[in-house]
Amino acid sequence: MLTEKQKMLNGELYLASDPELFRERENARRLVRLFNQSLETEYDRRTDLLKQLFGSTGSTLFVEPSFRCDYGYNIHVGENFYANFNCTILDVCEVTIGDNCFIAPNVQIYTATHPINPFERNTGAEYGKPIKIGNSVWIGGGAIINPGVTVGDNVVIASGSVVTKNVPDNVIVGGNPARIIREIEL
Amino acid sequence: MLTEKQKMLNGELYLASDPELFRERENARRLVRLFNQSLETEYDRRTDLLKQLFGSTGSTLFVEPSFRCDYGYNIHVGENFYANFNCTILDVCEVTIGDNCFIAPNVQIYTATHPINPFERNTGAEYGKPIKIGNSVWIGGGAIINPGVTVGDNVVIASGSVVTKNVPDNVIVGGNPARIIREIEL
Amino acid sequence: MLTEKQKMLNGELYLASDPELFRERENARRLVRLFNQSLETEYDRRTDLLKQLFGSTGSTLFVEPSFRCDYGYNIHVGENFYANFNCTILDVCEVTIGDNCFIAPNVQIYTATHPINPFERNTGAEYGKPIKIGNSVWIGGGAIINPGVTVGDNVVIASGSVVTKNVPDNVIVGGNPARIIREIEL
Repeated sequence: MLTEKQKMLNGELYLASDPELFRERENARRLVRLFNQSLETEYDRRTDLLKQLFGSTGSTLFVEPSFRCDYGYNIHVGENFYANFNCTILDVCEVTIGDNCFIAPNVQIYTATHPINPFERNTGAEYGKPIKIGNSVWIGGGAIINPGVTVGDNVVIASGSVVTKNVPDNVIVGGNPARIIREIEL
Repeated sequence: MLTEKQKMLNGELYLASDPELFRERENARRLVRLFNQSLETEYDRRTDLLKQLFGSTGSTLFVEPSFRCDYGYNIHVGENFYANFNCTILDVCEVTIGDNCFIAPNVQIYTATHPINPFERNTGAEYGKPIKIGNSVWIGGGAIINPGVTVGDNVVIASGSVVTKNVPDNVIVGGNPARIIREIEL
Repeated sequence: MLTEKQKMLNGELYLASDPELFRERENARRLVRLFNQSLETEYDRRTDLLKQLFGSTGSTLFVEPSFRCDYGYNIHVGENFYANFNCTILDVCEVTIGDNCFIAPNVQIYTATHPINPFERNTGAEYGKPIKIGNSVWIGGGAIINPGVTVGDNVVIASGSVVTKNVPDNVIVGGNPARIIREIEL
């Protein structure tokens, strides 16, 4: 018999109203609030709060407020992670981000999804699909990464992209839905 | 002789600098600020503030901060309304949302518009068009709903959609501008 | 021998970790925080903070919080500037905006860019391209203006547009990437 949390992490339908998940979201919102309210000079405190919030990080990371996420512990970022203003990550499943990734302002990374059928959706049952982003990826301003997407290494995601499908290594993608614009010569 | 507020609500050209509208926006901004500054544990206070702010609501509703709107009293939501982080609603005309609607983060609902002619626009005269969203609608992350749009029941609006035209019942729409992707079988 | 700041302003590759630029960003973030934390009734204080932050302004301007920018001093706005909620301007190069420009919520104006080559990008070297917006321009909600773009006079940029190329005078543009929808008769 799986808990709602186990179902959530497995990508199965689960109820977010579950008390354990409710408590965990409340705890994440507290850490996120402290982070977003911190002063621009409190560099160490900000790093400490992110390291408490995220599942794993490299030694250096930098996130500009305001940041938003659901649980935090499903977010894994590599070395030298940088996210600019107003990043939103819905991490009901794992969001794994490699080394040297740069995230422009207003980027949205969504593992959370709902049933398409309205009767099923209205029961409150929802689910997630993990997102994987490779090394040395630059995500442009306002881009959206949809549930279940894997992005390869060295990818550039143009500003305003809506990424609905997997992206191979060494390409620039753009548009809504995002398509390959060109390959990157290394 | 109509007041500026009456003209605004009628969808006619009006001046937002009007003292009555100015006071009403200031009052809404105060309630919105109290809401956005509230603690993640103040569930009842948040609900109370939303019920003060909105024109009408169901018995249960949940909005994540930060929320933004213009007047609040033009927003009518049904039972079991849920809006995630950073929802923006410009409610110079009515925004009517049915029961069981789920709004993902960074969704933007705009009734406000301006004249296309720059000389007319620069007089400060602006106007709005009401927005109507049916029951059991799920609006994906970062989607934009334009002035005057009516969205049917059971609709799924894909993340990043820019909805410029009416949407019938029981369809998934996506893209910029949003087009029907497929029908939903009930 | 150019400083990192001089290189940045010239549109050449520079290091944002430079101590002078670091201090200037910290100062801008302090002013932006004071602005975003100000009360909805503190009209004069908000105007004063914006005039301290921006490179130049007209006599009247109005910005709704939350506002975000990088340096502030590279932002030049004309008379009667209005920016609604959640405007993000990355001003590593000049952002010059004419008179009577209206910016809807969640608009993103990005002069900042990075090398496409991942090895070059991972050195931390980045650069910018100036953005120029004419007189009497209305930028719709959630629109994105990319580095190096010049927008003509009397232009209307539809909500959700991603503007990747220059826009001539007297047109409506929309879409991702934004294209001319029609000309505006004056």
